[in-house]
Amino acid sequence: MRRAIVILAAVFLSEIAAFGADDPLPAWNDGPAKQAIVAFVEQVTTEGSPQFVPAADRIATFDNDGTLWCEHPTYTQMAFALDRVKALAPEHPEWKTKQPFQAALDDDLNALGAAGVKGMIELVMASHAGMTTSQFETIVADWFKTARHPRFKRPYTELAYQPMLELLAYLRANGFKTYIVSGGGLEFMRPMTEAVYGIPPEQVVGSTIKTKYEVEDGKPVLMRLPELDFIDDKTGKPINIDRYIGKRPIAAFGNSAGDREMLEWTGAGAGPRLMMLVFHDDAQREYAYGPANGLADTKFGTFPESLMNEAQAKGWVVTSMKNDWKRVFAFDK
Amino acid sequence: MRRAIVILAAVFLSEIAAFGADDPLPAWNDGPAKQAIVAFVEQVTTEGSPQFVPAADRIATFDNDGTLWCEHPTYTQMAFALDRVKALAPEHPEWKTKQPFQAALDDDLNALGAAGVKGMIELVMASHAGMTTSQFETIVADWFKTARHPRFKRPYTELAYQPMLELLAYLRANGFKTYIVSGGGLEFMRPMTEAVYGIPPEQVVGSTIKTKYEVEDGKPVLMRLPELDFIDDKTGKPINIDRYIGKRPIAAFGNSAGDREMLEWTGAGAGPRLMMLVFHDDAQREYAYGPANGLADTKFGTFPESLMNEAQAKGWVVTSMKNDWKRVFAFDK
Repeated sequence: MRRAIVILAAVFLSEIAAFGADDPLPAWNDGPAKQAIVAFVEQVTTEGSPQFVPAADRIATFDNDGTLWCEHPTYTQMAFALDRVKALAPEHPEWKTKQPFQAALDDDLNALGAAGVKGMIELVMASHAGMTTSQFETIVADWFKTARHPRFKRPYTELAYQPMLELLAYLRANGFKTYIVSGGGLEFMRPMTEAVYGIPPEQVVGSTIKTKYEVEDGKPVLMRLPELDFIDDKTGKPINIDRYIGKRPIAAFGNSAGDREMLEWTGAGAGPRLMMLVFHDDAQREYAYGPANGLADTKFGTFPESLMNEAQAKGWVVTSMKNDWKRVFAFDK
Repeated sequence: MRRAIVILAAVFLSEIAAFGADDPLPAWNDGPAKQAIVAFVEQVTTEGSPQFVPAADRIATFDNDGTLWCEHPTYTQMAFALDRVKALAPEHPEWKTKQPFQAALDDDLNALGAAGVKGMIELVMASHAGMTTSQFETIVADWFKTARHPRFKRPYTELAYQPMLELLAYLRANGFKTYIVSGGGLEFMRPMTEAVYGIPPEQVVGSTIKTKYEVEDGKPVLMRLPELDFIDDKTGKPINIDRYIGKRPIAAFGNSAGDREMLEWTGAGAGPRLMMLVFHDDAQREYAYGPANGLADTKFGTFPESLMNEAQAKGWVVTSMKNDWKRVFAFDK
């Protein structure tokens, strides 16, 4: 009898351990967001069910800034651009008195905000072009090694959200192909997406500048030109999803007005769908912005009231960082 | 003794059968082209060898027209455009007397040739735009069901080259990811690439026209605009390979001057490489053009002498359809 109890206890404990080990989303609290994810994945992977989706069509697209990693106090790529402008400043004495370069050199985020998209594009063109694609890759990879986030004092690559990393892995374990579809620069993201997110270069879609094929000393190179090719934001996202992937996603994840059309496009397909927005309401562990702190229209990660209304009307899942996430970053206790 | 002979014979025969069954490239004659392919694949897949390439980097890119399927007497997409122009002609009475439409309505390939790239683009804009992406997909898929090649009297999808189908499958069985990188229209190819080549939509790269995100009756659509986005030919191929794939191929396959830069770009990477050109010298089973019949500069599938010289200088494999291919099409005896 005693032995039987020991065996039963052992079975019971091993089942608890197995359940714990089997939970693919341990950084998520057991709330509506996690339940929606698990229910959706079970639905589309249950063979014989009318909701079953073949693996080849299990396409999931993720915005990057503010959805997979931190985008405050500024986009990571903007931090990179500012560092590049500083590094290039000795060759451009005129920048000291010329906007938006002056603002960049002074780390004046307000003046940069005032310079708007036009200013941002000017900075990107000055700092992201004029070299070959492989030179740029090295510059970006080197920058990620040394740059540190101003608040968290850690490499930007450590500011990926732990719950989203688990979600990516969970979807892939269930036969999904996971893509990044970001307003960020394609070639700024690619040097780190495989290591940080497990997403290979060919599954990254982003904004692009033009490149030119040239032969230097008998060796072909692709020169990065200071000319915009395509902005992968807002309506650009479904356009690029169609162009690069050629299939409509069955799940899409975003956090701002820039992701609205991607979620609409995803939701307009037939069959089961999961659309989710990450809502930044956690000033303590990360940031609170958008409607969460009364700022309907911040410079980065715009989350207008109309987006919240559309989410509610269309049944998009709004994930609260504060309530739905047990941990935000891997380094959180 | 007699029984021993029977057993030996059985073993011998089964070994022959096994060897036959194991040959992944039965439509290739045992010549230099086939040997180069097999040697390359063994080289990059042998673990521990200094030439070993991890599966994630085994990227192979294929031109489509003239490399994977027949491109004569005209590109398949041009045949489609001509049929579309005829179908739309009742709505455009002015086309009867306006080039290049008049030539299209009269099947006048010489006049179409004279209209050049500009004429071709005009025909494509008139016939490939003005509908949603999903409407276009249906139009293309329907066309493939009914259209027949003028010489072979078969669906165009049956005019894929059997040796190249085997090569695609052989590479994939060895961990390669196979891509199409074609001057042809991206959305013209995608409805058939999976069924014909086993290549999913997300591994097809091609020329594009612009699209626009619109909401019709509350449902988002992508409208195809009569405006060129990008021509995926010549220098456009390495540019698009970098943009869509983000990795340099280790193997590339083409058949014309439009593929030159793709092969140069592939060859310029470090480590083992396979660059191959299909040479159309088989007027009996398919077509002979380019240098094979003294036409250095045909309208379709231009293969100038300079390309042959570059191939020889750089060790690119030139595959002779006549000598290297046991069968050209699956329907060949």
